[in-house]
Amino acid sequence: MIRYIAVDWGTSSFRLWAIDVEGQVRNTRKSGQGMSTLAPDQFGPVLDTHLAALGAGPGVPVVICGMAGARTGWRDAGYLDLPLPLDTLAEAAIRVPHEGRDIRILPGVARREAADPDVMRGEETMLLGALRRFGLEGTVCMPGTHSKWARLDEGVLTRFETAMTGEAFALLSRQSTLSAFVDPAQVDDRAFGDGVKAALDQPETLLRRLFHLRAGQLLGLVDGAEVASRLSGLLIGLELAGAPSGKGAEVTLIASGVLADRYAQALDLAGGGVRLLDADRAVRAGLAVAAAGLWPDEMQLETTR
Amino acid sequence: MIRYIAVDWGTSSFRLWAIDVEGQVRNTRKSGQGMSTLAPDQFGPVLDTHLAALGAGPGVPVVICGMAGARTGWRDAGYLDLPLPLDTLAEAAIRVPHEGRDIRILPGVARREAADPDVMRGEETMLLGALRRFGLEGTVCMPGTHSKWARLDEGVLTRFETAMTGEAFALLSRQSTLSAFVDPAQVDDRAFGDGVKAALDQPETLLRRLFHLRAGQLLGLVDGAEVASRLSGLLIGLELAGAPSGKGAEVTLIASGVLADRYAQALDLAGGGVRLLDADRAVRAGLAVAAAGLWPDEMQLETTR
Repeated sequence: MIRYIAVDWGTSSFRLWAIDVEGQVRNTRKSGQGMSTLAPDQFGPVLDTHLAALGAGPGVPVVICGMAGARTGWRDAGYLDLPLPLDTLAEAAIRVPHEGRDIRILPGVARREAADPDVMRGEETMLLGALRRFGLEGTVCMPGTHSKWARLDEGVLTRFETAMTGEAFALLSRQSTLSAFVDPAQVDDRAFGDGVKAALDQPETLLRRLFHLRAGQLLGLVDGAEVASRLSGLLIGLELAGAPSGKGAEVTLIASGVLADRYAQALDLAGGGVRLLDADRAVRAGLAVAAAGLWPDEMQLETTR
Repeated sequence: MIRYIAVDWGTSSFRLWAIDVEGQVRNTRKSGQGMSTLAPDQFGPVLDTHLAALGAGPGVPVVICGMAGARTGWRDAGYLDLPLPLDTLAEAAIRVPHEGRDIRILPGVARREAADPDVMRGEETMLLGALRRFGLEGTVCMPGTHSKWARLDEGVLTRFETAMTGEAFALLSRQSTLSAFVDPAQVDDRAFGDGVKAALDQPETLLRRLFHLRAGQLLGLVDGAEVASRLSGLLIGLELAGAPSGKGAEVTLIASGVLADRYAQALDLAGGGVRLLDADRAVRAGLAVAAAGLWPDEMQLETTR
């Protein structure tokens, strides 16, 4: 029996987990129906389709994190301010009236400083999950299209910064004069490491090093795998060079897949210690903590597996 | 009477000048028929159309610089190596067989070093013109899609570097998550200067500062003119921070229009001296010097005006 539905609704992806009375994942559904592909009035029908496929009746509540709560998403769930005790996240969820079902969207977090503004939406839920499940503390890196760096002090989110690393890589590898040379499917660890080290040592040379990639190809001096890997290394290295914690800090990396490998290698080259937590599990744990806060009598936390 | 035709055939633009027996510009033709829009067999017909419009008979020779000489252009004019005495440029021009007319394309310049490769095509002609017309010497900055930094020592090009500044600005302002916020038509000098200074002081924070632009807009803290100007400032500031000559060097800026204003302001903020030369006149002068070398008995140099 499904107890509640957890959804991570991002810019470009939709991920849903049906959680049973034991706190176990009963079903998983994923699609490309991210916020950027939907008008506000399409979120409800998309969710309904997935719920119907699972046979989740109208009494099953839904907790959502991520860009569905953006101003251009389903409904604006607002932003909480810093410093933020992460345990207060669930109580700030907004309720979306939809077909009589209990649907909540968790808010994001903002730093409203004119000189230095920043926002997150989705990562706060990941942090909550990692806090409650793994006792998260200190500096955290959550890589992605917009990489987040957070600082946690005894369960309180005190600071965060976002780097446009993944988006810069996507633009340069797909839409720039480098695109024809880039084969992102291939990985060259040495070229990646060289890029990381170059950017850590000389972050001010980025724009020249980007052109070197093009010139190297025009002159037949490098191949496509090298270009993609070096580009990735240069951008991740630049992110690390500018990390708010400094280059060599102890960092908890919350990531999955290729990004986890890349960032672990780069953080290692930067000289810091790395602890790796799985991003998928962290966000699911965060949604479970929120669900337990929202509907305390009806469910227990998803168990650790 | 037209003595020769000078053409600057770039990636995205075509510019032609008909030069008379006095060395004066008789006609100018400009279009968007750049290298990136043409297949190799389309260059000849495009040129013919412009020549026919001017009534330039088959006896009028044509000298061309720029991307028409790229491997993917009209015909590969190759690259010369460093150190390059600029006066030898014309003798390395290739001849393009086309309808019996004497057509030459000037070569580019390459640095074939695996660790640090670079290429230019078109700017070497600008340097030649500025050398012969204005006695160019020392560090030179030629901003653009791919900004060139060159070092001239007594007429010899000894070093150059390219920064992908203009292309990065185009990608971020037109195709990124910032695009919706950017109004490139507006200029905010203060925001531009703030961006330059931030990048000069902390080049390693670029990727974070890019996201601040987005967050500032989401939170209603900045307007579109500020975003465009600050973005431009951040990228030009990063280029200057990584300039091979160091931040505060004496620089000759060869530029026109808005770019000339922007770079002059940025170089001033970086603490160096700036001498400004007009880019259009420099390239035309370079083509005139090349023409005089190619066809010495038939013409004199374009006179200085």
